[in-house]
Amino acid sequence: MSSHHLTAERVIECRWLLPMSDNLPLREHHALAIRQGRILDSGPIDEMRRRHSPQQRLELTHHAVMPGLINAHNHAGMALMRGYADDLPLMQWLNEHIWPAEAAHMNTAAIVDGTRLAIAEMLRSGTTTFADMYFAPEEVADLLDESGMRAQLCTPLMDFETPWARDFRHGIEKSVALAERLRGHDRLRVALGPHAPYTVGDDSLEQLVEARDRLGVPIQMHIHETHDEVTQSLQQYGARPLERLRRAGVVTADLQAVHLTQLNDEEIDLLATSGASAIHSPQSNLKLASGFCPVARLLEAGVRVALGTDGACSNNDLDMFDEMRSAALLAKGVSGNAAALPAMATLAMATREGAAALGMADVTGRLEPAMAADIMAVDLDSLEAQPLHDPASALVYAVNSRQVSHLWVAGELLLDEGRLTREDETELMALAKKRGRELAQGREGEKQ
Amino acid sequence: MSSHHLTAERVIECRWLLPMSDNLPLREHHALAIRQGRILDSGPIDEMRRRHSPQQRLELTHHAVMPGLINAHNHAGMALMRGYADDLPLMQWLNEHIWPAEAAHMNTAAIVDGTRLAIAEMLRSGTTTFADMYFAPEEVADLLDESGMRAQLCTPLMDFETPWARDFRHGIEKSVALAERLRGHDRLRVALGPHAPYTVGDDSLEQLVEARDRLGVPIQMHIHETHDEVTQSLQQYGARPLERLRRAGVVTADLQAVHLTQLNDEEIDLLATSGASAIHSPQSNLKLASGFCPVARLLEAGVRVALGTDGACSNNDLDMFDEMRSAALLAKGVSGNAAALPAMATLAMATREGAAALGMADVTGRLEPAMAADIMAVDLDSLEAQPLHDPASALVYAVNSRQVSHLWVAGELLLDEGRLTREDETELMALAKKRGRELAQGREGEKQ
Repeated sequence: MSSHHLTAERVIECRWLLPMSDNLPLREHHALAIRQGRILDSGPIDEMRRRHSPQQRLELTHHAVMPGLINAHNHAGMALMRGYADDLPLMQWLNEHIWPAEAAHMNTAAIVDGTRLAIAEMLRSGTTTFADMYFAPEEVADLLDESGMRAQLCTPLMDFETPWARDFRHGIEKSVALAERLRGHDRLRVALGPHAPYTVGDDSLEQLVEARDRLGVPIQMHIHETHDEVTQSLQQYGARPLERLRRAGVVTADLQAVHLTQLNDEEIDLLATSGASAIHSPQSNLKLASGFCPVARLLEAGVRVALGTDGACSNNDLDMFDEMRSAALLAKGVSGNAAALPAMATLAMATREGAAALGMADVTGRLEPAMAADIMAVDLDSLEAQPLHDPASALVYAVNSRQVSHLWVAGELLLDEGRLTREDETELMALAKKRGRELAQGREGEKQ
Repeated sequence: MSSHHLTAERVIECRWLLPMSDNLPLREHHALAIRQGRILDSGPIDEMRRRHSPQQRLELTHHAVMPGLINAHNHAGMALMRGYADDLPLMQWLNEHIWPAEAAHMNTAAIVDGTRLAIAEMLRSGTTTFADMYFAPEEVADLLDESGMRAQLCTPLMDFETPWARDFRHGIEKSVALAERLRGHDRLRVALGPHAPYTVGDDSLEQLVEARDRLGVPIQMHIHETHDEVTQSLQQYGARPLERLRRAGVVTADLQAVHLTQLNDEEIDLLATSGASAIHSPQSNLKLASGFCPVARLLEAGVRVALGTDGACSNNDLDMFDEMRSAALLAKGVSGNAAALPAMATLAMATREGAAALGMADVTGRLEPAMAADIMAVDLDSLEAQPLHDPASALVYAVNSRQVSHLWVAGELLLDEGRLTREDETELMALAKKRGRELAQGREGEKQ
């Protein structure tokens, strides 16, 4: 692993290095060299000091350094509705609170502001890449271009009129335009985001598959989120949603299937053989009482499982440390096996597996030469992580996300000693409060 | 609520006040007056400024102020073994890792150091009171006396020889002596801590009940933690553990029953009618794949439910914010009802209900005149808690425990702007690392 004839721009030295490659274990006292936004080289600190004379050398003596986290499912703009309505049955929550508030307040400017808040929260807690699914993806793409983050933008597609598109076909047209506009962007990609089997009819599935094949982009979709969804599909279509999607040609290696709380053995086999990815959102599934995704069974069957927070309305944070811990603990409880989803596999789910699910396995999620320098440093020198018997265990079961100290995306420093480098936190705080007041006043107005 | 003929020593003004009394809602722009370690008065800030001329007035303009959190189940000294062994089946975890390490390294001095680390972590994350169950309670009592924290010390009782007692009878004798020594202590109480039904025989249960009645102290016990425990009891005693304990006279209002992942309807009725308290440890139950405590059913039946982290080995933090979130989310998932255990009820579980479970309802867990000034302030002015539509929701679902800014126990400031006032954090960090190295070297030694 040496390309030391090239000049490193920056070398990051650390106490523990977790490359998250399949065949690379945790390393101690290692360093990473970065050049032109990519990993150039890595090795023991003393060797790296002999090999490189970088412009900048950073000594992170108490830190674990690993790939930035990948939040594979989010509705970022909904951060403005964090805590707006909680502890309610799903349909009452949607019909009486979330959907009316969205209709009244979540215009393009509000969505951009909410996404800006979400980006700040994600960066502060170690996320370098996320998958978004919300209205106004064009304006969100502009924001993301400026923010420096890496993202997959899933265009929100359903049969009905939405704030973004008149109908499914219109949504596909706008998706094609956005995909063409972002083609070749180094950090932003487009995926098709059909909402769910119950909001996408058979004609629309045909258009979806046709567009996927034409554009060569992935599909992300909420699938088997609840038991009711499966029951309704059996009534309406005579088939469970996954079977219906399979017949339509949706279930391929390009599918990112979110939630999956209802799965029989055949469906797990289907996911494994098709190469589709599962995206697990444990906190959202719990908060909305949707059911339990059988993560241990999926992994055993060879299904790739990524991790996502879902939107802040059903979580209510965008903290992947919180989500990793919930995933690792819940997989044990649900499978009845305390050995299910160990710490290192949980870290892989939030990095390497997330990247692969989003079709970015060759770009991010591992710290190897030629990969993008999407890097997180976590200061493990806190009382809460002591004694430090095992860094992987500490990162999953004990570390607080406030211990994330540095974050780079494509080699650019976006978080420096816990402070955002491209965002004015004071201004953003004032903006979030203003948007919050507008939402609250809207609700007061409705009550009168 | 006015006793303003007495002089307040300190007044805490805050943005939101959550008294956590049954009949008191959340208040805005309120203040609390403190005198001689107790709450003297509370009311709107402007009225309180007219009523009191305190020696100190603290303006917490972005903060929620509420009772300090109550961690109703912990083995604090085990903080030294945080992350020592994870992701293993229960019996392998205990037999091959935890018990050998305890036998080799957890002497009295190590237990005191581990407890010191645990106290620091608990205070930093908002806990003012905890229930401990571990060896060396006499020396831990000395440490707690100095630390300023409030605690219930459960003496560790089992039929076998332990590092603390030769047998059950010896443990009872030492428990009596400790209870007599601490009688009248303003912050420390003793409870009897029989380990579990499978380590305490029928003769011992007789001694236990006799000692409880003589001393007038509670009993805390792991009960129905796993399915195996119930099966073994049926084989050995012809009765489920709770039924056996009921016959022995253990199931009364003085019982704190920890875990309870296996409960039929009769057992829930028994807990309700006896007035016994349940202590829920969701993260530990998940991590050890023990099962799911039916929290929503318990609450519906009128059983008091408190919350505890369990020891750091099976969690692996002592963070009650983390535990509240897990409890609120898991109760929804397990009951299939998104309205189960709403945010305010979760806060009550971690404060008022915890105090009542520990027999301290008249002392702590609510902010009312004459109650101890056991107070937590949480800075809600973070991006992660914005917009702030509902402070209770934010505290349970969005706040990070690093936002705890101040903590008082019996009126004494133990955490000031996030810094411990009675602990040298640098010294403690060095001590935790040294103890961690000893444990790691011991393990290396065994391997050779």
